[in-house]
Amino acid sequence: MVYVTRREVFSASHRLHNDSLSDDENKEIFGKCNSPNSHGHNYILEVVVGGEINPKTGYVIDLKKLKSIIIENVIKKVDHRNLNTDVDFLQGVVTTTENLAVGIWKQLVDKIPSGKLYSIKIKETENNYIEYRGK
Amino acid sequence: MVYVTRREVFSASHRLHNDSLSDDENKEIFGKCNSPNSHGHNYILEVVVGGEINPKTGYVIDLKKLKSIIIENVIKKVDHRNLNTDVDFLQGVVTTTENLAVGIWKQLVDKIPSGKLYSIKIKETENNYIEYRGK
Amino acid sequence: MVYVTRREVFSASHRLHNDSLSDDENKEIFGKCNSPNSHGHNYILEVVVGGEINPKTGYVIDLKKLKSIIIENVIKKVDHRNLNTDVDFLQGVVTTTENLAVGIWKQLVDKIPSGKLYSIKIKETENNYIEYRGK
Amino acid sequence: MVYVTRREVFSASHRLHNDSLSDDENKEIFGKCNSPNSHGHNYILEVVVGGEINPKTGYVIDLKKLKSIIIENVIKKVDHRNLNTDVDFLQGVVTTTENLAVGIWKQLVDKIPSGKLYSIKIKETENNYIEYRGK
Amino acid sequence: MVYVTRREVFSASHRLHNDSLSDDENKEIFGKCNSPNSHGHNYILEVVVGGEINPKTGYVIDLKKLKSIIIENVIKKVDHRNLNTDVDFLQGVVTTTENLAVGIWKQLVDKIPSGKLYSIKIKETENNYIEYRGK
Amino acid sequence: MVYVTRREVFSASHRLHNDSLSDDENKEIFGKCNSPNSHGHNYILEVVVGGEINPKTGYVIDLKKLKSIIIENVIKKVDHRNLNTDVDFLQGVVTTTENLAVGIWKQLVDKIPSGKLYSIKIKETENNYIEYRGK
Repeated sequence: MVYVTRREVFSASHRLHNDSLSDDENKEIFGKCNSPNSHGHNYILEVVVGGEINPKTGYVIDLKKLKSIIIENVIKKVDHRNLNTDVDFLQGVVTTTENLAVGIWKQLVDKIPSGKLYSIKIKETENNYIEYRGK
Repeated sequence: MVYVTRREVFSASHRLHNDSLSDDENKEIFGKCNSPNSHGHNYILEVVVGGEINPKTGYVIDLKKLKSIIIENVIKKVDHRNLNTDVDFLQGVVTTTENLAVGIWKQLVDKIPSGKLYSIKIKETENNYIEYRGK
Repeated sequence: MVYVTRREVFSASHRLHNDSLSDDENKEIFGKCNSPNSHGHNYILEVVVGGEINPKTGYVIDLKKLKSIIIENVIKKVDHRNLNTDVDFLQGVVTTTENLAVGIWKQLVDKIPSGKLYSIKIKETENNYIEYRGK
Repeated sequence: MVYVTRREVFSASHRLHNDSLSDDENKEIFGKCNSPNSHGHNYILEVVVGGEINPKTGYVIDLKKLKSIIIENVIKKVDHRNLNTDVDFLQGVVTTTENLAVGIWKQLVDKIPSGKLYSIKIKETENNYIEYRGK
Repeated sequence: MVYVTRREVFSASHRLHNDSLSDDENKEIFGKCNSPNSHGHNYILEVVVGGEINPKTGYVIDLKKLKSIIIENVIKKVDHRNLNTDVDFLQGVVTTTENLAVGIWKQLVDKIPSGKLYSIKIKETENNYIEYRGK
Repeated sequence: MVYVTRREVFSASHRLHNDSLSDDENKEIFGKCNSPNSHGHNYILEVVVGGEINPKTGYVIDLKKLKSIIIENVIKKVDHRNLNTDVDFLQGVVTTTENLAVGIWKQLVDKIPSGKLYSIKIKETENNYIEYRGK
């Protein structure tokens, strides 16, 4: 079992806001992350795939293909976008990095051509990161 | 002459858009940075002050004070904000990192208690940075 | 299960020295880390909490609260301190990063308001790091 | 159980090429990594050892010793070398980072004087990394 | 005057060797960098352009265009290549980072559409870097 | 003119304290950096040498030699030391990074075998850095 990681970066804006709560509750819970006109981040995404090494290629998964899959299924949908308004797979949830990681997991889990998706890691800032392993 | 740098990070959203141009021209010039609902970045700001070392303190400038000045005059105005709608000193200009650097220079140049403001550096992404030295 | 990490940095001095050994044994075991007047590091601390996402907030744990808990229980006790003389929870042990990680775990494990403490990671230098998961 | 990591960097060249495949198949599979005159990387190697803290030293493993073991058994063999032609433990396999990680594991697993080898991590580029835990 | 930097990374192999010197002299001067079958690096290239801000775009230079120019004139020629054998603009010189920086300067200096090329910076390793400003 | 940088890291402790001031003045000026039993940092030192490229070697200065000079004249004196008590060239000054940079400049300026010392840069923390160019 070898773990292969591909890192991609995307730039997005968002606002932490739960529509089912009052404005005061949103401010109380989310503080400056509830700022009404949005703020943003350079999100650093790491996609980890685990599997056996193919003796012919020496690869668990061809990183060129993994890169294409991530770009097609994730980056094109979130890069230079507003996570609250522009991203189909984040509708109906608060756009925290936790929910973003779970959403990206669901985008990718069925699309990995060799090995298995093992982990989604996201750095929202240099001090805050999230990891989700699908269970 | 010794140069002292203080680094601060802030998270903001923006949209590159010149109101005096047509939508097509904006798309042509700014591409995905013109995405209508904004996107965002973790901006890394470096403020450089140059001056003589004070023999009593060993400082060019007390970095605790420089930090407070940057937070009061810049970070509080841009962090967790939308640069297009929320920041007074960016009204009327396209919110490129170039204009952001010049704007931050103007916010700080008269507020440095010892030494002189020498340079404003901003990293918008890990691949794109700007420096402005006031002339 | 989602893992949330908060990173904090602190600057401390220390000396690797076991009082129950002779000076020669200390020099032999700890080498330059036994230098008598102390040396120091910018320690990079990562605190990892694992738990379920709260659907109301989208959080496993509010990172603003986690930050406060780390600052109150760890950073205030170690930052700009000498780990050998100034830190109550390191008395009686050699101030290696291993013992520091275990000590910080004990400071935090009962104070996490949601989710559970999963891991303490510390980088002492860019080449040496420690991880402790509580067992 | 505490995990101790030592990081070392080495600079090497390589070419992804499977001698049992045709030139066209090699080009198809490995793309630009099959470039005939080799290319290269600054490989970032992390060696993770897990074990109990020795109460006398406060160490799981003396990092000075771990460093020497890594340099003697790995770095001297790969640093400023061509992985395809110069490295005995990579003969007969495609010089992917996956195979490099497994090879380095085998070089080190029997040489750890305290604790046990837990993981080999290698960053080939800032976007591509591999981890191998020996099974 | 504002300075705009674009960062690109490329992976190449090379061997420090001056054909007009004896093998012994080459070994003496270049040490392990003279290793016969080449070694390699992830070179981090920073291209700095200085100029006035265009009030219509807020740009000194469109970074999307600068990126294309760097890729077309530099990255395509050096990435996944051997600097000694594969790169036309390095023929006849020792492939040190110094000569690489001067070579890249010459590739780019006449191709900058707005502003002027100000500096070429290259990190060969995390400890060794070069800057060239064209004079 | 090409600028060559060598980066070295050292770990030291210090206390900001001016003996000619009262304890209250020291606390007022230096705050937590005046903490009595010292604190410490991983200092990142960059030594920049400027000069012409030697056509025989392709070097401005042999970085292996520059490294040795820095280690012999600086690192051996400051690494794993207390800057206040153990470092001859810092006696009689407050051990700020400003004074450290000037002290290191003086240690090195006469020892550079080719090219000329151009700049000393020191990062005390990831947020605070100093540069000194000798005048």
